[in-house]
Amino acid sequence: MKEFYMQLALNEAWKYQFLTYPNPAVGCVILDKNEKILAIKAHEKAGLAHAELNAISYAFKKLKPEISLPKEANALHDFICKNHQNMFKGAIAFVTLEPCSHQGKTPPCAKLFSELGFKKIFISVKDENDIAKGGGDFLRKHGIEVEFGILEKEGKDLLKPFLKWQKGQFKLFKLAISMSGSPLGKIVSNELSRTYAHKIRSVIDLLVVGGETIRIDKPTLDARLCQGKAPDLCILSRNKLESFDQNIPLFKIPNRNIYTEIPEKAKFIMYEGGENFLKNFKNEMDLFLIFQSSILNNKKNVTIPLNLKPLYKNFLGSDTYGIYESE
Amino acid sequence: MKEFYMQLALNEAWKYQFLTYPNPAVGCVILDKNEKILAIKAHEKAGLAHAELNAISYAFKKLKPEISLPKEANALHDFICKNHQNMFKGAIAFVTLEPCSHQGKTPPCAKLFSELGFKKIFISVKDENDIAKGGGDFLRKHGIEVEFGILEKEGKDLLKPFLKWQKGQFKLFKLAISMSGSPLGKIVSNELSRTYAHKIRSVIDLLVVGGETIRIDKPTLDARLCQGKAPDLCILSRNKLESFDQNIPLFKIPNRNIYTEIPEKAKFIMYEGGENFLKNFKNEMDLFLIFQSSILNNKKNVTIPLNLKPLYKNFLGSDTYGIYESE
Ligand SMILES: [Zn+2]
Ligand SMILES: [Zn+2]
Repeated sequence: MKEFYMQLALNEAWKYQFLTYPNPAVGCVILDKNEKILAIKAHEKAGLAHAELNAISYAFKKLKPEISLPKEANALHDFICKNHQNMFKGAIAFVTLEPCSHQGKTPPCAKLFSELGFKKIFISVKDENDIAKGGGDFLRKHGIEVEFGILEKEGKDLLKPFLKWQKGQFKLFKLAISMSGSPLGKIVSNELSRTYAHKIRSVIDLLVVGGETIRIDKPTLDARLCQGKAPDLCILSRNKLESFDQNIPLFKIPNRNIYTEIPEKAKFIMYEGGENFLKNFKNEMDLFLIFQSSILNNKKNVTIPLNLKPLYKNFLGSDTYGIYESE
Repeated sequence: MKEFYMQLALNEAWKYQFLTYPNPAVGCVILDKNEKILAIKAHEKAGLAHAELNAISYAFKKLKPEISLPKEANALHDFICKNHQNMFKGAIAFVTLEPCSHQGKTPPCAKLFSELGFKKIFISVKDENDIAKGGGDFLRKHGIEVEFGILEKEGKDLLKPFLKWQKGQFKLFKLAISMSGSPLGKIVSNELSRTYAHKIRSVIDLLVVGGETIRIDKPTLDARLCQGKAPDLCILSRNKLESFDQNIPLFKIPNRNIYTEIPEKAKFIMYEGGENFLKNFKNEMDLFLIFQSSILNNKKNVTIPLNLKPLYKNFLGSDTYGIYESE
């Protein structure tokens, strides 16, 4: 069953893939001493609780609904350490990445597990990050069993975006097509898919689009569906910026920087576009995010040869989406 | 969490969708008295154990690996009733369909739950079948808590093929396309997808294909990937059967009936074909089974307007497949 529980942790983490930037996506499942599932949670956003603390606080609320918990991660960590009443004695955790052992924006998760009396921690991938690593050693020193390598390949797939943006630049291409492969123009995917795309827009350093998209779709390119910050833009076009109709909504966003080439400081960059844009840039992309509706239609398809290997696929309403590497 | 466990039961049942013909697809999750997951199982094939017995025997083996169990469903049922040593006392089950209360090819599942001392049974959909219904009442009479309606809509979706073939005819269209919507000819999908399709072929009453497919692909249309029985065929073509090259492998299958119109006795009928076949028959289909690879290519797509609503989607290796209704 350990693979089953790790898969639950991985699935939960993938739901927040990209949204945790600049942190890695991490998932955590907690079982009580009788192996009842108490929580399946993930790290959701930089600055919020790590996956482990998020799962533990969810379990705490379930076991003691009468106690209200502080919201802020440091205060939450301290409160749980003081008020756990041994409710996690003998508990088991499945974490997709080795728990951190350093005080960052939040206190170390390895310490939290040991304070609460966890019996065993299953880990998918060892943390190689110089600052955060060593959680497994810490746990063992404090008498907690640790087992590495559960669904390790899948755990490493989950970390791919993080390892890229941590070392330099991570480039993601977003494409939305019908089930029969045709780009449907401005609104192709359903509200759930577009909300996920807006959440990504709200955390990236730069959104790259082509002049064609701007002229045809006259888009806003903001993050309104999640009430997030509109991303800075880079417009790649043969035409000068001044040549575009300045009434197109994307030019009206306050405090937005608009570039015509990619600034070096941008580490997480999303490209959005159709067939031509994909053709021009597919070879420099790290990953592809492809939304596909459940509609067969009678429009021409995208005809670009591209062998993709899915790292993850899921559904958002009636849409399918996948995160792919090119082969 | 009850929806979470029911979803696990539903997911497991969908893996065997169509393969249980003429029985319904049913899934069952068993938790012990401490709510630890003991089994996630489904009914896999007519004649084999019902989902409930399959899950209970899986859990039995896990708890008592030293005891070897009989294989045949009736013997298995009896053996477990005699040797359970109260290991299921206080256990909980999640079943996607009300447990049967009648002696069919196998003994009633409701009786099994009560003999083993289960505490509570969660059920998605009430069984309206005159022969099998009444399991919930039976359980309550024997002091077991019963709760109906957990993920009922999803449970009803799972039963749609069964309700069709039970009342008359069920027609399924199988299509395999690339991610960019083009039918790739004979082999489009990967081995896992084709094995699932072959398993379906091995249980259906009739496979319907067009003359075009036969002339171009020269197929065998058997169920070799699952070592199953090759289905009877109906060839819909303007040309007479005698006009086809009789060396095409499909004509070499021993004991295969080949029709030129659909015999009335056929209740589960699968149509396989490409764009033209889909265009001609889409309006008379009950459901669509669509395999989609993870490849964008430069071939023309299927251009048939068809709004589909997914009942279920999953992955088989790098392929996606979905079971859809037309809207
Ligand atoms: Zn941490
Ligand atoms: Zn039964």
